[in-house]
Amino acid sequence: MASKGGTNGKPKPGKKKEVKKETGLGLTYKKDENFGEWYSEVVVSSEMIEYYDISGCYILRPWSIAIWENLHAFFDPEIKRMNVKNAYFPLFVSDSVLQKEKDHIEGFAPEVAWVTKSGKTELEVPIAVRPTSETVMYPYYSKWIRGHRDLPLRLNQWCNVVRWEFSNPTPFIRSREFLWQEGHTAFATKDEADQEVLEILELYRRIYEEYLAIPVIKGKKSELEKFAGGLYTTSVEAFIPNTGRGIQGATSHCLGQNFAKMFQITFENESREKLMVWQNSWAYSTRTIGVMVMVHGDDKGLVLPPKVAAVQAIVIPVPYKDADTQGIFNACSSTVSLLSAAGLRVEADLRDNYSPGWKYSHWEMKGVPLRIEIGPKDLANKQVRVVRRDDGSKQDIAMDNLVEQVKKILENIHESLFNKAKEKRDDCIQKVHTWDEFAVALNDKKMILAPWCDEEEVEKDVKARTKGEMGAAKSLCTPFDQPELPEGTLCFASGKPAKKWTYWGRSY
Amino acid sequence: MASKGGTNGKPKPGKKKEVKKETGLGLTYKKDENFGEWYSEVVVSSEMIEYYDISGCYILRPWSIAIWENLHAFFDPEIKRMNVKNAYFPLFVSDSVLQKEKDHIEGFAPEVAWVTKSGKTELEVPIAVRPTSETVMYPYYSKWIRGHRDLPLRLNQWCNVVRWEFSNPTPFIRSREFLWQEGHTAFATKDEADQEVLEILELYRRIYEEYLAIPVIKGKKSELEKFAGGLYTTSVEAFIPNTGRGIQGATSHCLGQNFAKMFQITFENESREKLMVWQNSWAYSTRTIGVMVMVHGDDKGLVLPPKVAAVQAIVIPVPYKDADTQGIFNACSSTVSLLSAAGLRVEADLRDNYSPGWKYSHWEMKGVPLRIEIGPKDLANKQVRVVRRDDGSKQDIAMDNLVEQVKKILENIHESLFNKAKEKRDDCIQKVHTWDEFAVALNDKKMILAPWCDEEEVEKDVKARTKGEMGAAKSLCTPFDQPELPEGTLCFASGKPAKKWTYWGRSY
Repeated sequence: MASKGGTNGKPKPGKKKEVKKETGLGLTYKKDENFGEWYSEVVVSSEMIEYYDISGCYILRPWSIAIWENLHAFFDPEIKRMNVKNAYFPLFVSDSVLQKEKDHIEGFAPEVAWVTKSGKTELEVPIAVRPTSETVMYPYYSKWIRGHRDLPLRLNQWCNVVRWEFSNPTPFIRSREFLWQEGHTAFATKDEADQEVLEILELYRRIYEEYLAIPVIKGKKSELEKFAGGLYTTSVEAFIPNTGRGIQGATSHCLGQNFAKMFQITFENESREKLMVWQNSWAYSTRTIGVMVMVHGDDKGLVLPPKVAAVQAIVIPVPYKDADTQGIFNACSSTVSLLSAAGLRVEADLRDNYSPGWKYSHWEMKGVPLRIEIGPKDLANKQVRVVRRDDGSKQDIAMDNLVEQVKKILENIHESLFNKAKEKRDDCIQKVHTWDEFAVALNDKKMILAPWCDEEEVEKDVKARTKGEMGAAKSLCTPFDQPELPEGTLCFASGKPAKKWTYWGRSY
Repeated sequence: MASKGGTNGKPKPGKKKEVKKETGLGLTYKKDENFGEWYSEVVVSSEMIEYYDISGCYILRPWSIAIWENLHAFFDPEIKRMNVKNAYFPLFVSDSVLQKEKDHIEGFAPEVAWVTKSGKTELEVPIAVRPTSETVMYPYYSKWIRGHRDLPLRLNQWCNVVRWEFSNPTPFIRSREFLWQEGHTAFATKDEADQEVLEILELYRRIYEEYLAIPVIKGKKSELEKFAGGLYTTSVEAFIPNTGRGIQGATSHCLGQNFAKMFQITFENESREKLMVWQNSWAYSTRTIGVMVMVHGDDKGLVLPPKVAAVQAIVIPVPYKDADTQGIFNACSSTVSLLSAAGLRVEADLRDNYSPGWKYSHWEMKGVPLRIEIGPKDLANKQVRVVRRDDGSKQDIAMDNLVEQVKKILENIHESLFNKAKEKRDDCIQKVHTWDEFAVALNDKKMILAPWCDEEEVEKDVKARTKGEMGAAKSLCTPFDQPELPEGTLCFASGKPAKKWTYWGRSY
């Protein structure tokens, strides 16, 4: 990890080296055959993740943290522009405060980790590690908010949270500790809160579509699936064709006045009336990275979308026996300088103990969007050979034209990744009208769009009827973009009049 | 917090408002009379800190997190330039791993917080919350490092750590959870490790001197005061004249090969010999912010150094009865635009329910380096009145010249703050040769420079002899910049031949 990829490590001419040629770097498992094993292998082999000796905890290595930082570099200025301020609240929350909002604690209680000892001393009362920070923050919102001029109050924090889940820990997707941002805002009116929910959701869509090249569906969660203690939850939903499972990409909740009631967050309006605030909370997490791996990865390893890749292009020298090796290495270094100066993230792999072939496999495993090869012929013709990670296509590009061409190709890779993912996802979407159609589609791992009566009991019933080894089906979201619902359309599950189209399926 | 300071909140002409004129915003305590109370009050009144319902934990409000982010914006690119990569390791560490380095765990064990329960389930084995991450990381360094080409390995993480201390919790300075960066690096040779220790220490000096305007002394810690389990510790040491206490500003440790031995972190060199790596770890924390408050704050509140202040200049309209109020407000807004466009952090306080005087006090409390007043006369003369927070001096500046002048003044404020702090600190430094001189100087709250024999037993003896209500004296550091030590100089404490000049005093 350390010395790989820099422009250091130049060969010492005249010194005979043992050069590793074996390209046995490939994955043992294939994505379409053993998806679960493929995923576990690819996140480790690409050096994104190291498994940790505490189950459900993972080490995020520089290759994944760089992606996290690139997303931060987009999102943090965006929310600051919305006048959200960053803050940092404690990791710990006392039992009595955690219990205040009843639905909320019911949702999180089984997963809360408790500190009961310091050194050899038992604490007087156990202290919870935050699973999310509503109860950590809101007692102070109550203190800070007095009058209408204190509103809106819009805070965000970047932090770790802990949910001691026991089912299927999976790197990025379901881990006992994860990183996220959590925004917590309070407004004088529901209108303002409603509006912010959608503004934030749009930023989440952009994270997925514009940065991770993953198509998502914006919509509203059902009553059963909404945030514990909230009024309503919106989300961006992605889909993993290989497993036929939906995955909640990020959520933007309107909490309504439930927490305001419990924590007495009130303000005096201009007419001196005491009113309760309207609140939102919203978050995206390191799960984003896992969805990216699942959607784009292939049998050679990761495939990174250019906008978030730590390294957008890797330059590899391809010296031949009698070639001007030093000239080739110099060309590699100056290519790195040229592209870096243009704001691209580019490195050269000048290690002399690996063959070009080994290096190709290595950087394919790590998912670098572009490989730039420079051999004797390229040197002679003042050109480089450029190879795309996503489709393997090759082209020779004149050095004169390189910056412009590389930028164009990187943009094109993003588009191709997105379009390919969208095509695959769209192929999995199936409209059904009846329970029988639903059952077949579920069996076919589809993301099912069905007319629904929107009754909680009916969703519970769907869950019960689809229970099994693969996990029950549930509603994923009711998309904002609704197909026409002709008068008289019936619910696929209850046969009652349908109120809306809703996505259903198994999910992560 | 929310709506204060933006350029929103323009007055509605013709509407009579109750305008708050009381300037009773001042602090109850004076810095020179009740330092401890003054500190607790100023961090809260300036909206940096909110006390939390768990003792020793504090809420870092946007006003302090902005400073943390400004320091990050300096330090993070600097270490990336040194080829350090960011990563993220788990919050939790298992008991067996934590115990591996004996001196290390002895140093931290009494402060470790233990998770023993999740939901209602007892964990099979208790899990520690990281007090620092040596033991979290190094088992994996052992795995990742195989040959000399894997070195150096240089990782850093930005995270929270927990040390459940029971003595004197103080916001920023000593809290049970705090934020920091921790760098952990491994090298093939001691020379490389030694060199990095000093490069990082220089960055820490720059944080204090170039960003926080606080003079620090670079030096080496004594054997007794060094990092538990390390080979040697270097630090930047600041001093708080009011309490006469030294304070460790940040530390850069060479761990030697102690951890390498315990965690078997070895590599094969070019001659195929198996060798142990040399390691460093280094960190600075949110303590930096507390030192800044203590050093620069005054009886009116915070005094922020311009480079780290969230708001570098606050623009305040000063309308008079018959003045062109709208014209003044417009001038305020365009002043904000002008200065913001030049890259400065500037806001206007256009609230109509507070008098100018109230606003002056408010922003003085928050420590904003510059106040820009715009009244009818200023409007007429195309000028603004600029008032410095640090010394209260006022000057009128023509709008034509504003950007250049404001930049110059902000630089000047930084210099003045640094020089004033250095003068005060230097006044506290006292050279002594004998125990009697030492005792008097300690009583006078000095930072004492004394010739020392450098024996651990002697430091223990000094601690024992100075024990008391105020806390014992200890060595602060042996400065790299050593005064001449004439042959035959004796240790102030033992009377044995002195080996070096060392700083002593009480400390945080």
